[in-house]
Amino acid sequence: MKKNLTQKILDSHILEGTAKAGEPVVIRIDQTLTQDATGTMAYMQLEAMGVDQVKTDLSVSYVDHNTLQSGFMNADDHAYLQSVAAKHGIHYSKAGNGICHQVHLERFAKPGSTLLGSDSHTPTSSAVGAIAIGAGGLDVAKAMAGIGYSIPYPQVVEVRLTGHLQPGVSAKDVILELLKRRTVKGGVGKVFEYTGEGLKDLSVYQRATITNMGAELGATTSVFPSDEITREFFERQNRLEDFMELKADEGAEYDDVEIIDLSALKPAAACPNSPDAVRDIEEIAGQKVDQVAIGSCTNSGYEDMMKAAAILKDKKIAPGVSLVISPGSRQVFMKLMETGALQTFVKAGARILECTCGPCIGMGQSPKSDAVSLRTFNRNFYGRSGTNSAGVYLVSPETAAASAVAGVITDPRDVVVDEEMEKEPVFIDDSMIYAPSENPEEVEIIRGPNIKPLPVNEPMQDEIVRKAVIKLPDNITTDHIAPAGAEVLPYRSNIEKLSTFVFRNNKEHFDEVCKANGGGIIVAGENYGQGSSREHAALAPMYLGIKAVLAKSFARIHLANLINFGILPLTFVNSDDYDRIDEMDELRIPNLKSLESTTDLVLENLTKGESYPVKAMIYEKDVPVLQAGGMLNYIKAMQ
Amino acid sequence: MKKNLTQKILDSHILEGTAKAGEPVVIRIDQTLTQDATGTMAYMQLEAMGVDQVKTDLSVSYVDHNTLQSGFMNADDHAYLQSVAAKHGIHYSKAGNGICHQVHLERFAKPGSTLLGSDSHTPTSSAVGAIAIGAGGLDVAKAMAGIGYSIPYPQVVEVRLTGHLQPGVSAKDVILELLKRRTVKGGVGKVFEYTGEGLKDLSVYQRATITNMGAELGATTSVFPSDEITREFFERQNRLEDFMELKADEGAEYDDVEIIDLSALKPAAACPNSPDAVRDIEEIAGQKVDQVAIGSCTNSGYEDMMKAAAILKDKKIAPGVSLVISPGSRQVFMKLMETGALQTFVKAGARILECTCGPCIGMGQSPKSDAVSLRTFNRNFYGRSGTNSAGVYLVSPETAAASAVAGVITDPRDVVVDEEMEKEPVFIDDSMIYAPSENPEEVEIIRGPNIKPLPVNEPMQDEIVRKAVIKLPDNITTDHIAPAGAEVLPYRSNIEKLSTFVFRNNKEHFDEVCKANGGGIIVAGENYGQGSSREHAALAPMYLGIKAVLAKSFARIHLANLINFGILPLTFVNSDDYDRIDEMDELRIPNLKSLESTTDLVLENLTKGESYPVKAMIYEKDVPVLQAGGMLNYIKAMQ
Repeated sequence: MKKNLTQKILDSHILEGTAKAGEPVVIRIDQTLTQDATGTMAYMQLEAMGVDQVKTDLSVSYVDHNTLQSGFMNADDHAYLQSVAAKHGIHYSKAGNGICHQVHLERFAKPGSTLLGSDSHTPTSSAVGAIAIGAGGLDVAKAMAGIGYSIPYPQVVEVRLTGHLQPGVSAKDVILELLKRRTVKGGVGKVFEYTGEGLKDLSVYQRATITNMGAELGATTSVFPSDEITREFFERQNRLEDFMELKADEGAEYDDVEIIDLSALKPAAACPNSPDAVRDIEEIAGQKVDQVAIGSCTNSGYEDMMKAAAILKDKKIAPGVSLVISPGSRQVFMKLMETGALQTFVKAGARILECTCGPCIGMGQSPKSDAVSLRTFNRNFYGRSGTNSAGVYLVSPETAAASAVAGVITDPRDVVVDEEMEKEPVFIDDSMIYAPSENPEEVEIIRGPNIKPLPVNEPMQDEIVRKAVIKLPDNITTDHIAPAGAEVLPYRSNIEKLSTFVFRNNKEHFDEVCKANGGGIIVAGENYGQGSSREHAALAPMYLGIKAVLAKSFARIHLANLINFGILPLTFVNSDDYDRIDEMDELRIPNLKSLESTTDLVLENLTKGESYPVKAMIYEKDVPVLQAGGMLNYIKAMQ
Repeated sequence: MKKNLTQKILDSHILEGTAKAGEPVVIRIDQTLTQDATGTMAYMQLEAMGVDQVKTDLSVSYVDHNTLQSGFMNADDHAYLQSVAAKHGIHYSKAGNGICHQVHLERFAKPGSTLLGSDSHTPTSSAVGAIAIGAGGLDVAKAMAGIGYSIPYPQVVEVRLTGHLQPGVSAKDVILELLKRRTVKGGVGKVFEYTGEGLKDLSVYQRATITNMGAELGATTSVFPSDEITREFFERQNRLEDFMELKADEGAEYDDVEIIDLSALKPAAACPNSPDAVRDIEEIAGQKVDQVAIGSCTNSGYEDMMKAAAILKDKKIAPGVSLVISPGSRQVFMKLMETGALQTFVKAGARILECTCGPCIGMGQSPKSDAVSLRTFNRNFYGRSGTNSAGVYLVSPETAAASAVAGVITDPRDVVVDEEMEKEPVFIDDSMIYAPSENPEEVEIIRGPNIKPLPVNEPMQDEIVRKAVIKLPDNITTDHIAPAGAEVLPYRSNIEKLSTFVFRNNKEHFDEVCKANGGGIIVAGENYGQGSSREHAALAPMYLGIKAVLAKSFARIHLANLINFGILPLTFVNSDDYDRIDEMDELRIPNLKSLESTTDLVLENLTKGESYPVKAMIYEKDVPVLQAGGMLNYIKAMQ
């Protein structure tokens, strides 16, 4: 049978299940990655599983999120991560070495392999023909333990690229076009596989921008073939031994197709406050800009920086603009120095930040009140920048640089410079990635006082009776549930403290409401839990006693996280029933034993004296996990 | 009469008073500087005074403290500062342009001039033969208004330098030696004036390290002559027009003399938690190091960085060490790129931070719990790093770099490399310093929601009856009173919020105790209010209703700040009486009208039924200021 690229890679990794869209399969995971904001919890779970040495080909622990270090908590986490990596066979990439996705792409991603990462933008590495997927930390811990990863076998959407990009139009505009067409929930259960003549226009860096931000579609992942352009990339990374050519069979079939004519694309922006609120730059040009930020895992590669530098050369930023630049990795940073691009930035008036996630996760550089902030990032959710009143626009590096100079939103086609980019060998130095210890038994784990024991759920009872402690609209993100940002991120390894921040932009003192009512049930609209992979968005509600989430639909990673932590995910059979439930209604879900044979349940609204049919969003395999009170309990009981 | 350098400069600036040690004089201020953590308040005071255009030769507003921007408050402050500078004739140095003291030294400091800055390390600029003094923001606002600056005419201590520094020993070790001899309160009321053959060994950068950290002596300032070495510095800064030779008259007299034989100095460290807890490196060598930080206004000049780079060249930092480097200015940063030193740092594994104060003020890079942190900074007060349990050692760049490589505290004489340093013209680009507007009437002041109106004190009554709401030991710093750090600094323009942090490491809920008791009196030991110049350490207690501070002795700047905000400063006549007062004793200070003719008062302890003689630490000129309830009220009443 002729296979597309996604099927080729997935099918060669199936451990259990059938390769049929929508059916659950367990796949072997070759590589894992974590970052520090999710990694501490993932490794605590790995420890709890009693795993001595990881079973993957390669596992890497990156530090790129909590690098401002306002208080001892971050440095304590880093010390824990370094020690736990040394002990359990994991590579450790030190703070300053770069953003996980950028470094992994450069140094570790392999065509034909599977990568599971505890960060939703893990698909970045799929740019070289890998299947790289974001997941919760517990799923990554399971993968490190050699248990594999469970997903519904995806539908595969062909994204056929035709034509050629105009100067000043780039990869960011391609993915923005797809987001405009498909929206932030358009990718659920799908892999977007890129094909067509237009591939030749896209370097690996540009492909990585697309696979990275493909996460905003809610997709399982996005994937590019591994071709001659990929080979050149590996050659420059001095990693030709990791390269192989890999593409779909001629005439392979897809579940769906989307054709994008690159020639027709214009520079675009995702407007506040959603990555799919996309408009052409020419529609919004002329608006005053207060801040421009270039960087993040989406657009901080060498080429992105060089394109911005070409526009900024011999220019000065507008007096009203703060321009911050965070290169994606040490490799990029060194190359910028070698080519003089870093000097160009500083001369233009840019502030150079560390090679980390930085402002993208609200880790500093919050704009001023009511600011317009142009960012080359992948998310512009409400409040994520740290300034609720700011409007964040997601744009390409070209648009960002042009607007920084003009002081207003500017179409980069008016100013773009077509410079030949240096393609010489890059700076290769993996010395800040520490290999695991050769004497792991001698390594002592360092646990600072902010690293609290893992909270564990109780087994599921036969019925749940709780109040609807919050009722939420559509498209609630994991940033709403468990906020990021400089104030909250340091508590990622302290769930008790973290739980006090849950839903803080939706409902004040949500934690106290939960405590006063012995926990509760969350009621939500469509696409609940979109965005980041953070399992904290399940863990912290679990800690607060949330027993079930009833939504119109769920985002993929968060759905898995809920099950992992023993929270029952339910959808409405009739979505109009959403309107019949009010906040603080008393709800009852009886007869949960029946989940062993059916996913159909009835939810009783005791306050209103009504009943609604609901559906448990689980597979058969998930039932014992929920019954045990989550995956950790389940795995421990197996041992 | 033969004059020393200090007298020459001061005497040419006296507006009122007599040039006699201890007598109050008012001096003309030629230049002012502010930074953003104290500047917002200073400019609000300038506005309150109704000043249209500043009356100084030059006033510069720098942004270097609150640059992490975790929340909208910092960027709002920056926008306010930029607009208020444009409107009132002040130059504005944008975030990223560098640390105020480093930039001011490079671009504006002038031999023979006076500079007043709302930062205690303003004496940095005295390295080129200026009299540069740190003060509270209100004093700087007064100077901008052309009112001059009041100080007790200082004693002048000659610091005679003989001999030659050994390789691996540098300016930091010179000032540490002086701190060891004189302690953190040894400089009160004094100027340290450097002379002798040893001057020839010290570049302007090294002299700046000494005058900068001379602030830790509690001195009014420290000063170097302007000589051939100074001339070379101005030449390389392309500012020869600002240079003039200036030194003490041959045979001039001094109040005191201290002789330092440079040849005998060894690398040293100020051990936790005081800048005067100085020991030789060889005594503490071998201790494991967790963090090394190179930068701050003390040691972030071009030469400091180059010395560190020479040691780090082709080396890697130890795996257990986090090395962070923050260059002092854009000029330094550019030069580091040009010479390849920045590449050296990154190759060695360093993390490069912005050209700002950064970790020195606890603005990020807090070390892990119980860490040993080596820093090239000027202060190691308890908790200032953001990690209370960490031990901070203040060292030279050479000691810092050598220890980062070894992973343990290391004597740099073992590894120092004697490299010829490039003396070519520096990178000169003042484009990120904005000149004031040519149309000030058109400038609109931007005031974000965190910028709250100035609180104002009430006029002093004839008696004060309040409880001793806190009793403190010796050497309480302004960091104790109004903490710095990433959590608190954003509230520098919001005194209500800031007041909730007062004394948080000394007494929990101090603000609530004050509120419950209708304010109070602070009782303290020696050297109360040492450290930073922040007037918030007077303003926030004033806001909480503190009416008087009774201490064994005061630090200079804080004493002035207390008076400026209408808080009565008292010292014990018999310091043993300190032991007779307990926390929460009810105290009464009657007959305050008598201050018009005497500084002798009696303090009644109503709880104990005792009385103690006390002395008001004020001059005659201060009486109407206190009676008005502070300087702002006083100035307004004058208009």
